[in-house]
Amino acid sequence: MAGSIFGQIFKVSTFGESHGPGVGVVIDGCPAGFKINRDFLNKELAKRKPGRKTYTTTRAESDEFQILSGVIEDVTTGAPVCIYIPNTDVKSKDYEELENVYRPSHADYAYFKKYNIKDHRGGGRASARETVVRVAAGAVAKMLLQQSGIKIKAFVSAIGPYHLERNFSFSEIENANLGELGTPDTEITFKILSHLKELKANGDTAGGIITCMIQNCPAGLGEPVFDKFDAELAKAMMSIPSVKGFEIGSGFSAAAMSGSRHNDAFESHGSSIRTKTNFSGGVQGGITNGEEVYFNVAFKPVSSISREQTTVNDKGENVKIKVGGRHDVCVVPRAVVIVEAMAAIVTADLLLRNRSSRI
Amino acid sequence: MAGSIFGQIFKVSTFGESHGPGVGVVIDGCPAGFKINRDFLNKELAKRKPGRKTYTTTRAESDEFQILSGVIEDVTTGAPVCIYIPNTDVKSKDYEELENVYRPSHADYAYFKKYNIKDHRGGGRASARETVVRVAAGAVAKMLLQQSGIKIKAFVSAIGPYHLERNFSFSEIENANLGELGTPDTEITFKILSHLKELKANGDTAGGIITCMIQNCPAGLGEPVFDKFDAELAKAMMSIPSVKGFEIGSGFSAAAMSGSRHNDAFESHGSSIRTKTNFSGGVQGGITNGEEVYFNVAFKPVSSISREQTTVNDKGENVKIKVGGRHDVCVVPRAVVIVEAMAAIVTADLLLRNRSSRI
Amino acid sequence: MAGSIFGQIFKVSTFGESHGPGVGVVIDGCPAGFKINRDFLNKELAKRKPGRKTYTTTRAESDEFQILSGVIEDVTTGAPVCIYIPNTDVKSKDYEELENVYRPSHADYAYFKKYNIKDHRGGGRASARETVVRVAAGAVAKMLLQQSGIKIKAFVSAIGPYHLERNFSFSEIENANLGELGTPDTEITFKILSHLKELKANGDTAGGIITCMIQNCPAGLGEPVFDKFDAELAKAMMSIPSVKGFEIGSGFSAAAMSGSRHNDAFESHGSSIRTKTNFSGGVQGGITNGEEVYFNVAFKPVSSISREQTTVNDKGENVKIKVGGRHDVCVVPRAVVIVEAMAAIVTADLLLRNRSSRI
Amino acid sequence: MAGSIFGQIFKVSTFGESHGPGVGVVIDGCPAGFKINRDFLNKELAKRKPGRKTYTTTRAESDEFQILSGVIEDVTTGAPVCIYIPNTDVKSKDYEELENVYRPSHADYAYFKKYNIKDHRGGGRASARETVVRVAAGAVAKMLLQQSGIKIKAFVSAIGPYHLERNFSFSEIENANLGELGTPDTEITFKILSHLKELKANGDTAGGIITCMIQNCPAGLGEPVFDKFDAELAKAMMSIPSVKGFEIGSGFSAAAMSGSRHNDAFESHGSSIRTKTNFSGGVQGGITNGEEVYFNVAFKPVSSISREQTTVNDKGENVKIKVGGRHDVCVVPRAVVIVEAMAAIVTADLLLRNRSSRI
Repeated sequence: MAGSIFGQIFKVSTFGESHGPGVGVVIDGCPAGFKINRDFLNKELAKRKPGRKTYTTTRAESDEFQILSGVIEDVTTGAPVCIYIPNTDVKSKDYEELENVYRPSHADYAYFKKYNIKDHRGGGRASARETVVRVAAGAVAKMLLQQSGIKIKAFVSAIGPYHLERNFSFSEIENANLGELGTPDTEITFKILSHLKELKANGDTAGGIITCMIQNCPAGLGEPVFDKFDAELAKAMMSIPSVKGFEIGSGFSAAAMSGSRHNDAFESHGSSIRTKTNFSGGVQGGITNGEEVYFNVAFKPVSSISREQTTVNDKGENVKIKVGGRHDVCVVPRAVVIVEAMAAIVTADLLLRNRSSRI
Repeated sequence: MAGSIFGQIFKVSTFGESHGPGVGVVIDGCPAGFKINRDFLNKELAKRKPGRKTYTTTRAESDEFQILSGVIEDVTTGAPVCIYIPNTDVKSKDYEELENVYRPSHADYAYFKKYNIKDHRGGGRASARETVVRVAAGAVAKMLLQQSGIKIKAFVSAIGPYHLERNFSFSEIENANLGELGTPDTEITFKILSHLKELKANGDTAGGIITCMIQNCPAGLGEPVFDKFDAELAKAMMSIPSVKGFEIGSGFSAAAMSGSRHNDAFESHGSSIRTKTNFSGGVQGGITNGEEVYFNVAFKPVSSISREQTTVNDKGENVKIKVGGRHDVCVVPRAVVIVEAMAAIVTADLLLRNRSSRI
Repeated sequence: MAGSIFGQIFKVSTFGESHGPGVGVVIDGCPAGFKINRDFLNKELAKRKPGRKTYTTTRAESDEFQILSGVIEDVTTGAPVCIYIPNTDVKSKDYEELENVYRPSHADYAYFKKYNIKDHRGGGRASARETVVRVAAGAVAKMLLQQSGIKIKAFVSAIGPYHLERNFSFSEIENANLGELGTPDTEITFKILSHLKELKANGDTAGGIITCMIQNCPAGLGEPVFDKFDAELAKAMMSIPSVKGFEIGSGFSAAAMSGSRHNDAFESHGSSIRTKTNFSGGVQGGITNGEEVYFNVAFKPVSSISREQTTVNDKGENVKIKVGGRHDVCVVPRAVVIVEAMAAIVTADLLLRNRSSRI
Repeated sequence: MAGSIFGQIFKVSTFGESHGPGVGVVIDGCPAGFKINRDFLNKELAKRKPGRKTYTTTRAESDEFQILSGVIEDVTTGAPVCIYIPNTDVKSKDYEELENVYRPSHADYAYFKKYNIKDHRGGGRASARETVVRVAAGAVAKMLLQQSGIKIKAFVSAIGPYHLERNFSFSEIENANLGELGTPDTEITFKILSHLKELKANGDTAGGIITCMIQNCPAGLGEPVFDKFDAELAKAMMSIPSVKGFEIGSGFSAAAMSGSRHNDAFESHGSSIRTKTNFSGGVQGGITNGEEVYFNVAFKPVSSISREQTTVNDKGENVKIKVGGRHDVCVVPRAVVIVEAMAAIVTADLLLRNRSSRI
């Protein structure tokens, strides 16, 4: 597959399938000398867990991680850090009847065309199960970034037709009770929950948007002209299952703005230089400028719907299916920590890469 | 900088600054045995040229390329292909008065924070001048893709507040007269030209959106889980100067759709399998599924505006500036071929990478 | 550490320390569709095992591997293949008294200077324990190469002052009983065993040379100008613990030869072209020419000797030590399969890379 | 070819063929802020020049370099540094009669098997002409290393059957008059020159050995377990045309030594720790230990001999040829600076990589 390694120095490599023995991640290039907080790692993993919410899968993932290498007495040694999470509660049986069909908007068909192999058991490598170890690697990256005071926070800004009606600052989000949907507006949370309930009743699903902010990101991160900070972020986000779009700062709305309105004027603040507005989203010319980095990530609705659908089987015949299994109505709330994790991995890698920008 | 190489097999590496001797590109990993059509290369470069349009810079770039290596009798040899384009009509003087200020929403400040070096002469490495050799490399990639029948077409779908009101098919675009703005709708072209004229009079600028389509892209391209087809596209597009957003297929609009509406039903078409709709944009699970790939790229308005702006100089003092020089009112039409070029580079690289997916 | 990944397409990444939970390897880029023979894998691992020989460590490594990913019903899927081998019979206690000293010619001191971390338990990441998963990855590479008829054989050509007195052909080695030392000459085997016994009695150790041959290697492998076939082999071999030298074909002896003697004349053999001699060792200009590839690898004597030595402790004081633990008198026989494994990994990677050399 | 980039951070990429317009190198990842001394660069290039020596080619390479990017007012900016050297005195005619034959022990045949393209004009990409830009990149690396006080010196330790009879220290070499052959022993120089004269008269050629030393190399460089300092050196050296072997420290002689003799005892020297002997060659476990790094590189005799040889033409017929053109009797003296250049590139890259070993 040769596409399962992300990063140039802080290299994150994942392995494992949804219905195999387990999933794991190896971080090669993790600097020596910082503490791995196992509680924090557990808490991060818990954020991605389905939980008992009405709109999530009932698959019970215990997600008990094992650190197989690279850490002695809870401190990184500079050797590759491997974190492994055995799969539990695997019900391949759920997928038996899907063995011979291509599920609409799933990866089955494309995988088969590429590898000439069909792993029907829950999506195999394409399953969102793989993202659990991204969260683990992201937790390690966050612990590394913490050494430099860098913080990352994401939240749900839209689900289905409902979206936040104003911007939220980093500190607002940091201090908010994001509730079970991961969104800072209680009223909208209520509306969305009601919407999801209705979708579930109809065997249907929803998508949404996650907004993410990086605070205290030092100026100078990002490696032009290709490995720009926002370009690496875009790749990282688009690599998350179900993501269809990425925008930084003003994003798509920039297209309709004039330069005089969009330009972020610099202002002198004593010894530091700041910008008056931040349409740039903290990145200019692909390099962070010291302002807050913020970006949006769009998720499509879950493809596994329990309504009847038409599709094709592996004999090329048109058939009708209902996708059983235990699926989420909406994965966006669970994806918040995945977005944060990938943002942390990108930032950690570019922070280390920036160490070589000058003599 | 260590970020100037793109791709894993078809490795594109650019060098050069806007006001240095020239700009160049080296393609390491260009397969041996296909013809380099110099006329085609010239035509591609011409598409990016400012021309004599009212809304473009008057900088006259002759863009005469030299092939320095990797080609014998106009056929690639397997050795690195270097294409070099000397800079002409360089007026560093235009930038002298900007030597000591940070231009709003430009890369000057971020570059200085990163490298502790200031190259005020037209943006140095961050200048859009660098993109001319992306177009050259893209032209080579297109000639390679042509061997597999793969075609790439982009067009302007929005500038400022004006945008196309319906989707256009690949053949419509291929056969359309895209006019001087690169957009298939004559009426909108007229409105936009008038809008740009007004902006120019006011010393202001515009952004826009480019839509790109890849036809005959074989199923199986893209390397999960990180180097997905759409993830690599996203990185490539976000690495283009001024780009603020990327979306594939349904993109951001997917967030508000239900699964039952968004799923692309498979249909049997004799020996082939196609999808009824194409919200996926030709990519599922990060792998092309044989449908048309299409995506949008959002550009911010040009940062170099001739209206007075407030900013900070390198002594940390608040100052007022007017950015002179010869700048575009809107770069989006000239960026169409750049978007195509980066799409071609991504496709060529993933086409070659896919050769190792099976025994 | 960021140096634990080898290869460009067939990417082999190892993790794990000698006295941690286990060691593992992830192969990203392993093509889909070939069979993993578990018996073969076991046999390869067995070749590296200490066994009950007089000159080897008594550490009993069970080396029971687990395939954690990338394989369904014993066929590769194209997803990353992870093979994990838990550590057993770990006696960290053996190393307690060495906790505060730098063992001569070991990696402890250099690791400490690099990472500011000391893992005294048996060498940590620098331990030859890590090589067990190279053998596992090499076994997978061999199964892949088998599809193309490529075979790899190595043997011991010297230990201490004793060395083979003539060259051996691939078929001789393939059909020979290499005996417990992995060398095709019975008389020399006898002399070496007697020598090793003596060294053991004196608390001393020996080095040696391994010769390796690759048969049926197709012409065209190797990626000039840096990733030449022999350059990649050299790196791979030098990365094996204790290796001090590498030579291909005529190697160091070429330095004293004249061109007229060293040149390998081409000869027409019906439809194929062969060389009369093979001083080139099957590689010309960094690319295989279809002749047999052969090369030598020099190993230093084992650094862990039980004789008293002078060294320095971590307070910077001169001290005397005896290295206890369970160490080999000579690792060269056990390293034969490691040399083969790394040769297989290099060949597999360059075989896949060569798929993109032409349109 | 996809093998023309060396390094992970200080990425050196060469392009160009012996009989094309020129050869060039791009260094992506060159840190900003150090001075490029053009005189030094010229002097380094001069060391590789054929000169007027009796044993070298009469091809007159002017080697006038152009810095095309990455440098402003002779200081690196952090952008890719491109150095280009046009080819002059190119006589393709010399090669016309060789157009249809495979020269023995040359790369023609292997290149043809790989790319299905034949560039007979002087070896094309495989020509030693390419190494001139390695020297240029090496000069830049040396200027970077100078900032850390690191020095590199190589010398000829053997040509044909003649070799130095003792070791030389770094300061001896630094202060010696290495004479026209680059060897510190006058008597041997005399013998070798006489030998080369004789070979020339006979239309024959010689090989040799170069020894290289790195002084003041800080402890901690090298990235286990694959990208070890000596492994990267080995790859770099083996990538130089005509190289057949590499050994570090004791090298091949280690194979016959006992552990008690080979171990380098640590000794306390006040605040620093040194080793009594240096059989390790300054590298332990793949990481530099602060001692002097030294290694040997074996070169085969020049393949272009003017004596009649038998070979095969591209119709597969056995033919006789005499290789005309202007060839060296021995390239080893000219290769001294190439060995130093590649050593400097490796050291610079691993120095930068080591910046991320700890938090």
